[in-house]
Amino acid sequence: MVIEKIKQTIERENLIENKDKILVALSGGPDSVCLLHALKKLETYYNIKIYAAHLNHKIRGIEAQKDALYAAKLCDELDVPFFVKAIDVPAYAKEKKMTLEEAARKLRYDMLFEVKNRIGAKKIAVAHNLDDQAETVIMRLIRGTGITGLKGMDYKRVDGVIRPLMDTSKANIVSYCDENKLNPRIDYTNLETEYTRNKIRLKLLPFIEQEFSANIKDTISRMANVLREDSDYLEAEAQRIFEEQVLENTNETIKLDIEELKGTHSSLVKRLIRMAIKTLAGTLEGIDNVHIEDILSLIKNSKNQLKLNLPKGLMVYKTTDGLIFTFEEISFENVNYNYILEPDGYIQIDEIGMRIESKIMSKERCIALPTGQYTKAFDYDKIKGNLIVRSRLDGDRMKPMGLGGTKKLKDIFIDLKIPREKRNSIAVLSDDKGILWLMGHKISEDYKIDENTKRVIRITCKTL
Amino acid sequence: MVIEKIKQTIERENLIENKDKILVALSGGPDSVCLLHALKKLETYYNIKIYAAHLNHKIRGIEAQKDALYAAKLCDELDVPFFVKAIDVPAYAKEKKMTLEEAARKLRYDMLFEVKNRIGAKKIAVAHNLDDQAETVIMRLIRGTGITGLKGMDYKRVDGVIRPLMDTSKANIVSYCDENKLNPRIDYTNLETEYTRNKIRLKLLPFIEQEFSANIKDTISRMANVLREDSDYLEAEAQRIFEEQVLENTNETIKLDIEELKGTHSSLVKRLIRMAIKTLAGTLEGIDNVHIEDILSLIKNSKNQLKLNLPKGLMVYKTTDGLIFTFEEISFENVNYNYILEPDGYIQIDEIGMRIESKIMSKERCIALPTGQYTKAFDYDKIKGNLIVRSRLDGDRMKPMGLGGTKKLKDIFIDLKIPREKRNSIAVLSDDKGILWLMGHKISEDYKIDENTKRVIRITCKTL
Repeated sequence: MVIEKIKQTIERENLIENKDKILVALSGGPDSVCLLHALKKLETYYNIKIYAAHLNHKIRGIEAQKDALYAAKLCDELDVPFFVKAIDVPAYAKEKKMTLEEAARKLRYDMLFEVKNRIGAKKIAVAHNLDDQAETVIMRLIRGTGITGLKGMDYKRVDGVIRPLMDTSKANIVSYCDENKLNPRIDYTNLETEYTRNKIRLKLLPFIEQEFSANIKDTISRMANVLREDSDYLEAEAQRIFEEQVLENTNETIKLDIEELKGTHSSLVKRLIRMAIKTLAGTLEGIDNVHIEDILSLIKNSKNQLKLNLPKGLMVYKTTDGLIFTFEEISFENVNYNYILEPDGYIQIDEIGMRIESKIMSKERCIALPTGQYTKAFDYDKIKGNLIVRSRLDGDRMKPMGLGGTKKLKDIFIDLKIPREKRNSIAVLSDDKGILWLMGHKISEDYKIDENTKRVIRITCKTL
Repeated sequence: MVIEKIKQTIERENLIENKDKILVALSGGPDSVCLLHALKKLETYYNIKIYAAHLNHKIRGIEAQKDALYAAKLCDELDVPFFVKAIDVPAYAKEKKMTLEEAARKLRYDMLFEVKNRIGAKKIAVAHNLDDQAETVIMRLIRGTGITGLKGMDYKRVDGVIRPLMDTSKANIVSYCDENKLNPRIDYTNLETEYTRNKIRLKLLPFIEQEFSANIKDTISRMANVLREDSDYLEAEAQRIFEEQVLENTNETIKLDIEELKGTHSSLVKRLIRMAIKTLAGTLEGIDNVHIEDILSLIKNSKNQLKLNLPKGLMVYKTTDGLIFTFEEISFENVNYNYILEPDGYIQIDEIGMRIESKIMSKERCIALPTGQYTKAFDYDKIKGNLIVRSRLDGDRMKPMGLGGTKKLKDIFIDLKIPREKRNSIAVLSDDKGILWLMGHKISEDYKIDENTKRVIRITCKTL
C-alpha cells in the first residue's frame, strides 16, 4: 500500500525519469528508511539507480554513531551504495552562531549536493511525509501567509530535490517499517522541528482529527496541490511579464516600466516587486507585506521622483518612466523641464507630477477669489513675452516680495532648507524678464497687483 | 475605534460611492445593530442615505415579534427609514422542504432585494464580521477547498451586497453596542449557523488563540484578502480566455477549442471547465474535483469521440476540434474518414486517435515476428489497387477467417455487441476488391498467407 502510494506520487508528479540516479538522504529514522527501502524495491521497475548518504552530525555522540552504523548496515543489506560524512555540527553551530537545527540542515544539504555531484545523480530524495506537509501548511497559515505558503512543500524542486513520500502518512510509514522489519532508529525529527510545529503535530492536528475531520491531513495536502497549480501559473505569468516590462537589469539595478505596471493586475504587480527584490538582494528575508504595499502606493502616487528605503540598503525610486530597484543612490537633481504656459491654458508636468492652470480676469473678479500657497495672482500687463514653467537654472535670481532687492535662487533654497536633490522638483514661473514665482514658496515684487492693474493672471498649481 | 475600522474597510475596498442609497439588513442582533448605527453616523461624511429592512421570520413567535419592535424603535430613534415584512418562515420551510436556516436565508434576501429595488438603493449592507470571515475560511479549509474557498466572503458582491464590518471583531462590535447603549436583541446567529461552524467558533478558534496566536482571526482575514486578489486575477484571466476559446455558446451547448485548451495552463483549464458547467447548469453543485480531473484526462486523451456524464444530465464530449459541454446527445456515428495507406508508410487518423503503419517484408522475416489483435500480416500480392483505411460503409461485407463465406459487416458488429455509435470508430482496411481487416476484430480469408506467398504486408495500429 505504501509502495502503491509512492508510485502514484512519483507518476502524478513526474518525479523520476528513466535511468535517473537518485540519492536518498538517509538519517536512519523511519521516514528515510521507508523511503530508501521502497525506492530500492522500485529500482528495476523504473530503471533507476539508488544511492544513499548519511550525515553523522555528532549531536549526542554515541547515538549519532549508532545511527551511522545502522544506516551503513541497512545499505549493505539492501545493496545500496552508501556515503557517510561526519561533521561536528555542535561545534560548527557554535562557530557560525547558528542553532543546531539550522547548522544540521545546512551541513546535511551541503553534503547531499556534494555527493550528488560526485556520483552524477539527477535527484536527491528526501523523506518529508504527508504529516510534515499538513503541519507545514498549518504552521504557515497560523503565522500568516499567501498562496506561496499554502502550497506547502514542493514535490519536486528545480535543484533536483524530490519528495516521493509526501502523500504517505507517518502512520503508514511506521507500519511499513514494521512489516518489513526495518527497525529504524529513533525518529530525530523532533530534533529538527520547531516548537510551533511540535504543538501542531501533537495538539492541533489530533484535535481537528477528533473533532472535525479524520482526513484533515489528506484534505490539506489536496488543497496544497490545487493551490500549487494556481501558484505555478501565477509565478510563470509574473516571470513572463517581468521579462516584458523590465527596462534595465544589472547586478545593481532593476528598472521596470512604470506605465506597464500601472496597467497590470495587483496580484501580478506584487509578484513582480518580489521578483525584483529577490533578484537583487538574493532573498526576500526582511521583506514584509507592508513593504510591498508601500511600493504599490508609490506606483499609484501621481508624483514622480519618489524614493523608498527597503531593508539591507535596497532602495526603490519612482521616476517618470520607471520603478527602479537599486543599491545605488539616484539623484533627481538633473531632471529638467521647460514648458510654455498659455494664458487661459494649462500644462501638465509629469516630471514633477503637477498640473498648472492660468486664468485671465479683471482685477475686481480676482479680488473676490481666494489665493493661497499654491494659487497666486499677478499683474498680467507686467508680463513680457511667454510665461514659462521650468526647473531652476544656474544663476537664477528673483526679487522676493518684501525683501526690497534681488536674491539668488540658490540662497533662497538654502534659507528654506530645501535639500539639493529636491530643488529641481520645485517649479519656477518666469517670463522673458525674470522670475514671477518660485512655486509654493516665494512670489516676486515685480509682478504684483497695484492700483494701476487692469488685467490679472491667476495661476494655480495642483499635484496630479 | 469601530467607526475607524469600518471607514478603513469602506475606503480600502471601495464599498461606498457618493450619493449611494444603502439598505442595511437589520436583524436586531449586535452585528446588524452596530452596522446600522455606525453607517448612520457616517451618512453625512460619505454623503449617503441609509435605510433599514427587517424580516419578521415568525420563528419562536413572541421573540420574533419583539425583534421586529426593537428594530422599528431603533430606526425611529436613529431617524432611518424602516421596512419590515412578516413571513411565516417555518410554514414556508415545511412547504418547500427546506431547513429553517435555508428558508430564512432565502426569504430574507428576497425581501432585501425587493426593498432595494423599490427604493432604488445601490447597496445592501450585511453585518458579517471578522469572526464570521475567519470561521468561514477555516470551515472551508477543513472540508477541503481551493483558492476560491480560502478567499472567504467578498467585501463587495456584483449584486450590490457589501460587508463593511468584515474587518471588525465580534468583541469590538459587542463593546460598541454597549458604549452606545444600543441594547441589541439576542444574537440569532446561532440559529443560522451550522454545527461545524459553531464548533469552530466555540472550540477550535479559542484553542488556536490560546495555544498559537491571539491574532489568528486577523491573520486569516489578511490571508483571505491576499488570496482574493490572486483569485480575482485568475478568474478574470479565465474569463478572458473563455471568450477567446469558446467556439459555440448556446443555452444547451458550450464548445471550447480543444487545441487551445491543450496549450493552456491547467490552473486556467480547470476554471474554464467550471465556467462552462456553471454557465449551462446554473450551478456547480454536485461537481467535485474528481469530475474536473476526469474532464482534464479527457482533454489529454489521444482519442477523440469520447464522452463523459456529469451530474444533472450534463454531458462532456471530446471531438476532433472541440470539448463540448451539452445537455443534448451527440452521435459520433456519422464521423467518416477515408485514407490511403502507402506500403511501407503510415497514416494518422485523428478522428479515431489511431496511427496505422505498414511494412513490406519477406514471408520468412514476417514469420519470425509476432502478430496480435492490433498487428496482422497479409499476402501483399493478393492486394488489388490501393490499401484504404476508412470508416464502414452501408452494404460492407467481408469473408471472416474460418467462416467459409461472406457476412455483412453490420451483422458482425451485432455479433460482437458493438453499439451503433461506436461502429464508425472501428477502422476498416480494404483494397479495390474487398475488406482485409475489420481492425482489432476480424481478418479476411481472401488475403491470408499461404504456401505461395512471397511478399507480406504487416500492418500495425496503435492508439495515439
